[in-house]
Order: sequence, then structure tokens, then C-alpha cells
Amino acid sequence: MTSYEAPLADMRFLFHGMGNLEAVNRLAGLEDATADLVDAVLDEADKLARERLAPCNQTADRTGGAKFENGVVRTSQGWTEAYDAFVAGGWNSVPFEPEFGGQGLPWLVAVALQEIWQSANMSWALCPLLTQSAVELLTAHGSHQQKSTWLPKLVSGEWTGTMNLTEPGAGSDVGALKCRAEPAGDHFLIRGQKIYITYGEHDLTENIVHMVLARTPNAPAGTKGISLFIVPKFLVDEDGTPGKRNDLHCVSLEEKLGIHGSPTCVMAYGDNEGAVGYLVGEENRGMEYMFTMMNNARISVGLQGVSIAERAYQQARAYARERIQGKPPTDGSGAIIGHPDVRRMLLTMRSMTEAMRALTYDLAAMLDISKRHAEEPWRTYADRRVGLLTPVVKAWCTDVGVEVASIGVQIHGGMGYIEETGAAQHYRDARIAPIYEGTNGIQAIDLVTRKLLRDDGTAALEYIEELQALINGMNARAEEDIAIIRHHFAAAVDALDNATQWLLDAGKDDLAEALAVASPYLRLFGTVAGGAMLARAALHCVTTLQDTSQERTELRDKLTVARFYAEQVLTQAPGLATTIAAGGKTALALSEDRF
Amino acid sequence: MTSYEAPLADMRFLFHGMGNLEAVNRLAGLEDATADLVDAVLDEADKLARERLAPCNQTADRTGGAKFENGVVRTSQGWTEAYDAFVAGGWNSVPFEPEFGGQGLPWLVAVALQEIWQSANMSWALCPLLTQSAVELLTAHGSHQQKSTWLPKLVSGEWTGTMNLTEPGAGSDVGALKCRAEPAGDHFLIRGQKIYITYGEHDLTENIVHMVLARTPNAPAGTKGISLFIVPKFLVDEDGTPGKRNDLHCVSLEEKLGIHGSPTCVMAYGDNEGAVGYLVGEENRGMEYMFTMMNNARISVGLQGVSIAERAYQQARAYARERIQGKPPTDGSGAIIGHPDVRRMLLTMRSMTEAMRALTYDLAAMLDISKRHAEEPWRTYADRRVGLLTPVVKAWCTDVGVEVASIGVQIHGGMGYIEETGAAQHYRDARIAPIYEGTNGIQAIDLVTRKLLRDDGTAALEYIEELQALINGMNARAEEDIAIIRHHFAAAVDALDNATQWLLDAGKDDLAEALAVASPYLRLFGTVAGGAMLARAALHCVTTLQDTSQERTELRDKLTVARFYAEQVLTQAPGLATTIAAGGKTALALSEDRF
Repeated sequence: MTSYEAPLADMRFLFHGMGNLEAVNRLAGLEDATADLVDAVLDEADKLARERLAPCNQTADRTGGAKFENGVVRTSQGWTEAYDAFVAGGWNSVPFEPEFGGQGLPWLVAVALQEIWQSANMSWALCPLLTQSAVELLTAHGSHQQKSTWLPKLVSGEWTGTMNLTEPGAGSDVGALKCRAEPAGDHFLIRGQKIYITYGEHDLTENIVHMVLARTPNAPAGTKGISLFIVPKFLVDEDGTPGKRNDLHCVSLEEKLGIHGSPTCVMAYGDNEGAVGYLVGEENRGMEYMFTMMNNARISVGLQGVSIAERAYQQARAYARERIQGKPPTDGSGAIIGHPDVRRMLLTMRSMTEAMRALTYDLAAMLDISKRHAEEPWRTYADRRVGLLTPVVKAWCTDVGVEVASIGVQIHGGMGYIEETGAAQHYRDARIAPIYEGTNGIQAIDLVTRKLLRDDGTAALEYIEELQALINGMNARAEEDIAIIRHHFAAAVDALDNATQWLLDAGKDDLAEALAVASPYLRLFGTVAGGAMLARAALHCVTTLQDTSQERTELRDKLTVARFYAEQVLTQAPGLATTIAAGGKTALALSEDRF
Repeated sequence: MTSYEAPLADMRFLFHGMGNLEAVNRLAGLEDATADLVDAVLDEADKLARERLAPCNQTADRTGGAKFENGVVRTSQGWTEAYDAFVAGGWNSVPFEPEFGGQGLPWLVAVALQEIWQSANMSWALCPLLTQSAVELLTAHGSHQQKSTWLPKLVSGEWTGTMNLTEPGAGSDVGALKCRAEPAGDHFLIRGQKIYITYGEHDLTENIVHMVLARTPNAPAGTKGISLFIVPKFLVDEDGTPGKRNDLHCVSLEEKLGIHGSPTCVMAYGDNEGAVGYLVGEENRGMEYMFTMMNNARISVGLQGVSIAERAYQQARAYARERIQGKPPTDGSGAIIGHPDVRRMLLTMRSMTEAMRALTYDLAAMLDISKRHAEEPWRTYADRRVGLLTPVVKAWCTDVGVEVASIGVQIHGGMGYIEETGAAQHYRDARIAPIYEGTNGIQAIDLVTRKLLRDDGTAALEYIEELQALINGMNARAEEDIAIIRHHFAAAVDALDNATQWLLDAGKDDLAEALAVASPYLRLFGTVAGGAMLARAALHCVTTLQDTSQERTELRDKLTVARFYAEQVLTQAPGLATTIAAGGKTALALSEDRF
């Protein structure tokens, strides 16, 4: 069985050393999120993850995951106990508003906790992730009565939530959905089939609250005719307890490449009398409402890339320290961690993971600022930044998550291909994240169209200016590590700047051509943004190291990690800019029938 | 069910257009391999692959693959019928010497056929791949009696062969193996356990000939004390038919990430009276003998990367043409193939696959030249080139195979994560190839130490000179496509040249540091070598296009593919050179306990 422990040192480095926590602790309503409190919370989360979540992760995978029998979905061994402990510990309510039982802690803290849950057991942790989206939707758009009916139980985690968007013919193109909603007095009757419904049915809680997109009669075509409904598994009696079973059921579970512990359901609504659904907000505004929780959900999925990368790294590191094979040309234990190529692989995993984590936490802090800063210009600034970096975090971190998990397999050699080892599970689990919550191709389109072209590059150029200021900040330092990092980082920022300018021009002339290089642009953006986080960390380290009273080894390690990333990862940036400048003409030159 | 058809057009382009077949058809003993014959052979192979091999590929995966019950391994549905048809058609004997029933066709042709088998059904095709290695070992090192006993049946495929190197403590470090061989008259008694034995037990043939590495008493430690033995499942009577069962058996099958149809066996030798084994050649020279078939075996595994990439491409292309989702901004069918990012993904898959295929076929032709050219300097030259490019083909093609299979999953969106679709199988199957037959890290070490440093860069610099001549050949052309390709290719060759010089210097000073960047160097080498093949093809296309009587569309497509690769893939080369020049110092800077 593979173990896991939360990377508390790196988390604390980001919270305290890099000042992320201080930045959000100053915000109205987040004054309680002190360093002491957060440290204690992280310690407890680590404990829950190690004791309850991590142990049943591989078991679920190896036993085939959730089971569907006679209409009932049974989750894997240890699943309900873990969930009960999670709810009892109040973990579900961390980031939500106190009005309905939330703890009102910063998203920054919530994101660190989510990282821990997702690392420990990604399949399990998907359940609270979906509930989170439901809570956000209802908090933002539910009526007062809807909020008081549904939110307390969803916030506590006593009930879970789901998102029902996809249908067989409507995946990336949500606007093509056909699910119908007929008015029937104070509610609607929902009829249709939904697919890929994560935790659409399970045995963890006594009720499940489905958030369902459907069309009312005579709704306009496309995304402008979609409404959002609350469709509970059990209707709620006047005293707030689950009563009559609603007309909806799970038809089957998908057999997937990974995340076997997470039931992916085909859901049927209204096969008989029609499923009772309650309209959220106004008709035809469902897609608009969805966007309110999109940033958070996408950041959470990006975070899954970080989580799986961390888990794969921990496992590969343990194996590399223990496995003896050949005589390494370096001094040390004699285990394969002494082989230079294994060392390179481990440092690749680690530096990518630390860069992704820093970027994601930074974005979470920005999310808090965007929601709570006292001054409107700061909120607007933070909102712009969140919009810009959300597709980057979602796509870059999940792509890299897959790559890091694959390196983890490779470090294990032949053992990596044997399922018992557990390395292969991460490789399979990781692969979903670039697909769901908007494929990474869609994230790239979002980045280029909505985030870059629509505001004439304001957000991107403002960001690049900040990166240039960071480069300037490094000029003053004499340390070799900083000079090397600065060298590669400056070249990478130049590359991002050039590619951004190219896209701003090309996008006006020929959008299709720009979109054909949108993915390389997103890759470039992520590579540079991650590098910026490590460069900032390196600068912090050398500054702190001047004060000899500080613990030095950890900071020296950080410098090494940042330099490694600069030498091995940031060096890819100029080539990506060359690709972008070559344009998308060639990709479009071959006609469809010539493939 | 997913279908497959052999990429005959591209194969013929390489054979006839690019002159590979002509080059080997001129060699002594290969005069029969005419264009007509080879075309007919490819057509028949395509038929067998489509009708027999491809249909049972997904079935085997979906039903859990080979089964182990009461000591017997049962292969999947359709497996034996496919194997019988394969043997009956004489396909197993294609590349072997006529003396023992081989057809004496070029390796070039054998490699094209192997690509077809591996694409159609990688798990199934592993069986003849292992037999091939056994045939090569015996052909090179067996006694006359051993050859006449074992080769006719192995060449025909009536019996299969296996390679028994790995033990629990001896994987990459073969020299650590502990399997023992005690002399007992005219034979030896073998005792020990072997793991990861592909097709160590199965129901396809009446006998299995295991090639087993073991130590005789008082053998020197390490690789210098390893001997090679023939250990058949059934001893052979004087009339050449299988008789007494030998003391060896399959203990269990591994549960793997992929290639489920291929039984990966734990094998026990000599649990009772000792397994009868016959020494091949001299004692203690087993590892040396292994190296005689290493190049072929590694090229074959590299080819699996090509095969799985081709299969994944065909499947993704079919899906992209059929799936409607959103409105593409390009004219066409309206299917997702019209989305620029999907187009980019498909062209990435295709251009990488064509580059890998061209490189592998070129290497196969070089292998024929190295064995058969009339003039010794040409044989030496070809042998040097085979040595240089074999680790590149093995590692680069298998790494890219995984990447291409992953893109294939991505193009399918949510469907790619559902096992029923079949895209995920390629992603799982592909992942073994970077691991076995020497991990890709070991290939990189081989490239830098044996192939680069040991001969002071002779082979590499000679190759780079040829690439520079190719660049010069492009200077004369006025076509825009060629100018663009030339531009990126020249930068990439410069990068390879610089990185090679850096390693030649650094390798002398600090081998560990050089080895820490060996993998990026191999990646760079493969990227440039693949680019060279497409650049050469592009040059051929523009030259041919001047003659307007030629079919133009296919050649124009080739130009587009080559240009796409130049713009999107070759652009990574300079960054890799920067990484290599940054050196491996940073990778080694973190001490083992600080990971």
C-alpha cells in the first residue's frame, strides 16, 4: 500500500514565507485565518488524509471501484467511514459563508486542504468538490427559501451536490443539450438523460442534490435557452427531512480508465411522472449562473493536477530510495536515487509540482482578494488576474499532472507497469483532469479569446509587466543561482511577451489561425507563470539567507529547485514562442479529407 | 470495436519514393525483394491484420487478457486462430535465413510488417517479437546441432521463443542475477526464478523455447559470469518432437497497466529435479551474445511506439470526423475535426508518427546494409549508424508513442476516458514500451557513453555532417515550405551540434553531470533525426512536384506535414540544447536525503 503525507513544509513556505496567508488574513471577514489557526488546520487535515483517505485509495482502485447493483451505487471499502469523519470534522464547510454554517475560511486555505484530499484520494475527494460547486451556485443565485432548504445540509456535507450538464450530444457544446423542464405549479418536471455525472448516485449520504441544466418550453436555442434546476434525489418534507423519492435514477456506471472509486453515472430524469425540479434564479440564465462557480471549479481541477503530481512524486521518491539496481556514479545510499537520470526525473517531478502549487495557491489568494478587498480597483485587478490565470491553472497543471505521473511510472521501471505497485493508478487517475471541467483545448480557447483578445491584452500585458518588474528585482543580486534563474526567466518572459503580441495581432486577422496555436500559448503561459513563482521564491530565499539565524537547508533546496526548473523547463519557452509565431496556417492547410 | 488499416501509402512512399527498398534490394541475398513483391506482401499483411489481429485486440483488453488457471495460461478469444493463420501464411519466417526455413527478406520489410502487427494488436504481436530474438541468438551463437534442433520450428513459428533475463533483484542491472546452472553431463540443470517473462507460458504452440541467463558454478561476479541456455518447455525426442515435460512452470501472471492480452509470467525453473538447459556457445559469454540481438530488439520496441501512435491516430481521426460538437470556425463537415485545436492535435499525432516511421525504416535499411553490403567500409559505416540511432529510436519513439496515445485520448474528450471507446487502451498499452528492453533512461546512458563518448563523437559528428549537407541541399530551393522547414531544421541541427560538443567536453570532466542531461540529449537527438527524415521527404516532394505527371495531392500533404513538424516540434530543439548546456550540476546538487 502506498502512503501519503501532506507537503506541509512547502505549504507553510507559501503561506508564511511567501506571504500568501498574510495577504488574505488582512481581508474583511478573514481576520480569523491567522497563521496559528491555519497551521493547526493543516496538521489536522494531514492526519485525516493519512489515516482515513489515503488508505482506501488504492483499495478502491484495485477492487474495481464503486459498484452498481439493483439501482444502488455502493462506494468502496472505507469510503463511508472516511466521509463520515470528514463531515464530523467540519471539513466540508471550510470555505463557505457562516450564514449557512460555513466556516468562512479563505479560499487559499480551502485550496490547500483540497490539495491534501485530492492527493490522498482523488476519487473520494471528487465528491466534496462537486458539493462545493452546488453550494456556490445556490449561494449566488438561490432564493432565500432555496438557500435555507438546501444550503445547511450541503455546507455541512450531510447531503452532497452534483453538476448535471453533459448529455450524449452535448459535452463541450453545452448549448446543444436537450433535457426538458415543463412548468408544473411551483416547480418544474424534468425529463431527459445526463451522462458523466460524478457521484450522481452513492451511499455516502441520505440525500443528493442535483443541479441540472434543462430547457423550458420555447426556450431560445443554444446556451441562451438553458435554465438551472435543483432536482433532489429525495424531495424534502416541511421539516426539512428527506421524504418522497424523486423520479430520477442512476442507469449505469461508466467503466473508466481511472478514478474507479468515483462513480460516474448515467442519470435518467423523469422516466415516469417527471422529476420535480426547482428553478434557480430566472429562466434561460442557467449558463450565466454556471460561470459564477466556473473559476473555482476550474482552479480545483487544476489543483488535482498538483495533487496527483505530489502523490506520484512521493511514491517515486520512496521507491528510488529503496530500490537497489546498478552502481550509481554518485556518493550516497547506493539506491537508484543516486543515478543521475533518476535524480533528474525526481527533480523534474518536484520542481514542476512546486511551481504548480505556488501558482495555484497564489491564484486562490487572488480569488479571496477579488471577493473581499475593501477597495474596488483591487477587486477589479484581482478579478482580472483570476480570469486570466484560471484557464492556465486548469490546463497547464492537469497536463503537467499527467506528465509527472508518467515520470513516476518510469522511475519504478518494470514495477511501474504492475498495478499492485500503485504508480500506474496515478497515471490513470491523472488522465481525466485535462478532459473534464472544460477540456484543455477549451481552456486554451478561453485564454486566447475571452482573456486575451476580448480585453485587447490588458490583463496579459499587465501581468507580463509584473514579471518584468520581478526580473528587474533580480538584477541587483550577485548570487550565481539568481543570475542563472534570471537569465532563463528573462528569456521566457520575452517569449511570452512576443507570443502575446503576435496573438493580439493575428487574432484580429484570422481567429482560426490564432486558435490553432492557442494550446502552445497556454503551455507557454503556464511554463512562465510557474517559473515566475519559483523565481520569486528564489529571491525570497537569498534575501532570507542573508539573515543567518534562519534555517538554511530548506531555503538552499528551494534555490536548487528553482534553478533546476529554470534550466530544464523555462528553457522550453522560447521554442514555444517560435511555434506560435509560425502561426496556425499550416495546421489548417490540410483539408479534412486528407487526414 | 476500433478498426485498423495499414498505412500503406506512407509505407510505399518510404519504400519507393524515398528509395529505402532500392537501397536494400541491391544487397547480396536481397535481390528477390523487388518493389512488386514487397507491395504484394504489404497488401496481404494488411489483410491479415484487419481480419485476424485487429478484431481481437480490444476484446482481449476488455476481457482481462490472458488467464492463468491450474498452471495453464489461456490466451484470449481469437488469439490461437490468429496465430495459426500467421504461421500458416509464413509470416513468422520473413526476415530469417533460408537455411532453416526463413524467407530471407530484408529487415526493412520485416520492420514494416512488424509495424502492422503491432498496430493491429500489440499484445498479440509481442509473441513473434520474442521468438525473433531467440532465432537471432541461436542463429548467431548456437551449435550446428542446436540450430537444426530448434531453428526450423522457431523460424516457422510452430514453436515460440522467450527471453529470460530479469529476476526480482536484477532488472536494469542484469549482472545481479542469481539463477544457477549446474553441469550434468551433456546439459545443465537450471534453478531459479525469472520475472516479467513475456509469453513465458501460453496455449498458442505445442512447445516454448526459453532462452535463459544463469550462472554456472564459480562464474565471475556481474555480467562477466553469465551464461546463456536453451531451456525448452518440453524436451525434444530424437525425432525432433516434443517429449518429456521439463522442470519449469509458470507461477503467476502479472496484473499490468496494459497489454493485457500478453501474458507476463513469473517463471520457476528447477523446483524439483532441475530444468534441463543446453549451454549456448561458451560459458560466461551470455551477455555478449545478448548484445547481438539487442539492436534488432530495441528497434522493434521503438517500432511499437510508431505502431501504437499510428493506431491511436487512426482512431482519433475517425472520431474527429464523426463527432459533432460546437461550430468549428473552419469550412468543412462541421465535425470536431474542423476545430483548429483538434486539427493541431491530429497533425501533431500524424507528423510525429510519420517522422518516427521514416526514422525507424531508415534504420532498418541501415541494418540490412550493415549486414550485407559488399564493401567493408560501408558495412562499418552502417554499423556505426545503427549503433548510434538504435537507442534514439528505442527511447524517442516509445516516449512519443505515449504522448501521441495521450493526445488520442484527449481528442475523444470524455469518451476518451471511457474504456469501451478503446482510446484509453492505447494510452495504457503504449506505456510499457519506454520501460522494457532497457528503460529509456538506460538508452540515454547508452547513447552518451557507448555511442558518443567512447568513439569521441565520430558517429555523431559524421551524422551531423550529413544533416548539414541536407540543409545545404535545401538552400537551392525557392519554395516557401522548404524555406520554412530549412529555417527550423537548421536551428535544430545547430542545437544538436552544440549539445554534442558540450557533452563530448563535459563527459570527460564529470560523467555523472553529463548523464544527468543524457535524456534531454536523446530527446533532442530524436527530435532532430525525425525532422531530418521529414525534411528529406519534403525535398523529395518539391523535386517530384516539378514533374507534373506525378500525383500531387499526396506530395503536397507531405510538405504540409513536414512543415507542421518543423514549426511545432523542431522548434523545441534549441531549448533542449540550452538545457544540456546548463549541465547536470543542478540535478546533482540536492543530496539524497533532501528529496
